[in-house]
Amino acid sequence: MANERPRIGFIGLGLMGMGMARNVAKAGFPLTVFNRTRARAEALAGETGCALADTPRAVAEASDVVITMVSDVPDVEQVYLQGGGIREAARPGLTCVDMGTVGADAARRVAAALAEKGVAFVDAPVSGGSWGAEQGTLSIMAGGDEAAFAACLPVFEAMGKKIVHCGPVGMGQTTKLVNQIVGALNLEAVCEGLRFAQQSGANVEAVLDAVGAGAAGSWSWSNLGPRIAREDFAPGFKIDHQIKDLRLALEAAESMGLKLPGTRLVLEHLRTVQAAGGGEQGTQAMITVL
Amino acid sequence: MANERPRIGFIGLGLMGMGMARNVAKAGFPLTVFNRTRARAEALAGETGCALADTPRAVAEASDVVITMVSDVPDVEQVYLQGGGIREAARPGLTCVDMGTVGADAARRVAAALAEKGVAFVDAPVSGGSWGAEQGTLSIMAGGDEAAFAACLPVFEAMGKKIVHCGPVGMGQTTKLVNQIVGALNLEAVCEGLRFAQQSGANVEAVLDAVGAGAAGSWSWSNLGPRIAREDFAPGFKIDHQIKDLRLALEAAESMGLKLPGTRLVLEHLRTVQAAGGGEQGTQAMITVL
Repeated sequence: MANERPRIGFIGLGLMGMGMARNVAKAGFPLTVFNRTRARAEALAGETGCALADTPRAVAEASDVVITMVSDVPDVEQVYLQGGGIREAARPGLTCVDMGTVGADAARRVAAALAEKGVAFVDAPVSGGSWGAEQGTLSIMAGGDEAAFAACLPVFEAMGKKIVHCGPVGMGQTTKLVNQIVGALNLEAVCEGLRFAQQSGANVEAVLDAVGAGAAGSWSWSNLGPRIAREDFAPGFKIDHQIKDLRLALEAAESMGLKLPGTRLVLEHLRTVQAAGGGEQGTQAMITVL
Repeated sequence: MANERPRIGFIGLGLMGMGMARNVAKAGFPLTVFNRTRARAEALAGETGCALADTPRAVAEASDVVITMVSDVPDVEQVYLQGGGIREAARPGLTCVDMGTVGADAARRVAAALAEKGVAFVDAPVSGGSWGAEQGTLSIMAGGDEAAFAACLPVFEAMGKKIVHCGPVGMGQTTKLVNQIVGALNLEAVCEGLRFAQQSGANVEAVLDAVGAGAAGSWSWSNLGPRIAREDFAPGFKIDHQIKDLRLALEAAESMGLKLPGTRLVLEHLRTVQAAGGGEQGTQAMITVL
């Protein structure tokens, strides 16, 4: 296979996974996909000509590198470790990459279960939202040994523009939780700042322009601020998912004896929106609690 | 004066003002300065050949556009309105610009007191810290009428790279308070995220690199994060000043019936550092409370 492109498997075609898998296909990798809701897999096959498989195991049998992008810890464990899962297709040379956000502990558990069968594992969660997934501009934070990371790099380059090898298995997840903590508080910043501007009768367009260019500038300000200004709460990243990620971050922090009071405040705000039925909205809908 | 550069006066050569005034001189404007601690004014005169004045009034008498950059509301009122102040030099054609952060109410009070004497006033607070002041890359958020803004624009261009006319007098201040709210919470984000990374045993350099490139990126992350990582708490912007600005923001919010719980949390953290003797440190020293 040295001179050919590795065969890629992709499991999980949700808001993020669909855009990522499409970019893998567009980059010319042979691609086999599985999704729990089969219609989404069929749609991608119709569009790109990729192959369909009936189980995660069948994806792994057809692939050199298997990427998983599913929602939460139980889904990841099911896809890898339960009946019909990836582990049943274990063979030397197979590399698995989970790109969801599940925390370092879950990543290490899956890695250990695969290592027993000679299968390499990389945790490589991403940042950039569905917009970044579609445009192939994700940031990818990878944990794993050098050889496994090297095996994944070509396909990472089809999905992301910033790819960082952060350390051994688990360190991709740790870096991603840092990212979620920081993004959550940057979002609180945007919401409190814009609410202040609106209540003050300011010209919000001028405020967005002026503040974004200075020492208060951020990705959140430039990307979520304009959406908030026009009350566009369509999800680039859903409130339900941010709640899950902040829960993982706060659990990890607690286990280290670390208090993160700002992160906890943002989680409360997001839960208020979720309780009012807004969990499927984009995180920027958090401004409605202020 | 139409074809000549306006004569500029500059009052207040502190951490920010010194760099700003130096850039005004470097850009070739005739410059007269006053500073309460005269040695700083003499140092600038030695370096740039600018003129010295003994009072704010004398600065205004020698200038077409007077810039003030002093610390807090009482200082601004003194420089403009008390004995030896700028108002005593009032004449048509004089334009005054306060570039400190004093809140919209104070800006409107000074503007009204000057308007009685036919003097134009612009509030034009800045963002970018002393680093931005030195490099001439500040963001400038201006409030005032069109003619007064136009009179200031050439000298603004010597100090800043992003110059936004935000609306009438007071709206520069309002925009700046938005900026401070956002910057404060972006800083909380950096501190909570980096503390989590440090406690997790992560490679902080890799985390800084990976997170900065994605949806959690910000000016604060890229500029304060590396300083925190090497425990460099030298001030680009002092904790004492950020406390003053957040107090102004929370007072204005309260008067509008608006709660800003994240901003209030950051203010508490900053006051904890201040109470421990760290008020002269840069805002990034806030990480020491986590």
